[in-house]
Amino acid sequence: MSVNDAGFKAALEEAKIGASEGGIPIGACLVDKDGKILGRGHNMRIQKSSAILHGETSALENAGRLPASAYKGSTMYTTLSPCDMCTGACILYKVSRLVMGENKTFVGGEEHLRRNGIEVVNLESKECEELMAKFIREHPEDWDEDVGVGK
Amino acid sequence: MSVNDAGFKAALEEAKIGASEGGIPIGACLVDKDGKILGRGHNMRIQKSSAILHGETSALENAGRLPASAYKGSTMYTTLSPCDMCTGACILYKVSRLVMGENKTFVGGEEHLRRNGIEVVNLESKECEELMAKFIREHPEDWDEDVGVGK
Repeated sequence: MSVNDAGFKAALEEAKIGASEGGIPIGACLVDKDGKILGRGHNMRIQKSSAILHGETSALENAGRLPASAYKGSTMYTTLSPCDMCTGACILYKVSRLVMGENKTFVGGEEHLRRNGIEVVNLESKECEELMAKFIREHPEDWDEDVGVGK
Repeated sequence: MSVNDAGFKAALEEAKIGASEGGIPIGACLVDKDGKILGRGHNMRIQKSSAILHGETSALENAGRLPASAYKGSTMYTTLSPCDMCTGACILYKVSRLVMGENKTFVGGEEHLRRNGIEVVNLESKECEELMAKFIREHPEDWDEDVGVGK
């Protein structure tokens, strides 16, 4: 697993699309066991006033309705450590591996993923960190809202 | 907490709307600490080919963007024990209590909710059980797909 994986590149591209839309810059991409992209997406809290369209849930939603077998051996690439909801979504569909860009900004359900047999990889991407640092500096309240903290 | 709570009645109504649309009959309703309904919704897997619009996530989505304080003391009513994704969504937003119609059809993340300080109540509603039993008898594969099992 590396930052050169097509799945990670797509997730990072999605995060940048989110940033260009004025949104929270988190992207994700779900790749099947053969390396085919099933779905990709980015956080839509600001763009769609959505409480549930995070990066990973958007990727799952854009992958559409799939049978359980489609998720077997799949990898969820995401630019940031997954929140509790996205962690649960990966457990529900039994993705096999979660590859995150970074977890310096936020640490989500990594332990719960491992407890459920999902491999967790951290690519420690500075580019992902910087995208988030810029957003949080400029819009701290939107970021708090996205992870259920703050006012 | 009882089947006469307005929140539970709304969740059950949503489940029945889902059934009338040919969808998976699971509904939910998020109620704030003062008893005000913040959002309600039902599973939309079949209606919208959605992988993420379960009962609880639909209720959260329909409640819209809210600050963390809005979820304080809130109760998520749902007609069925919540899957891992919906469990995670309740933990992310720190709802205070989850009241389910039943858990005979399916047992989701109840233990994980409790571990995260969320009160869990089971109303053992026969009506909720019967809605699900009818759907699963008629559409077993759609139900399997919704909880990530089967083919």
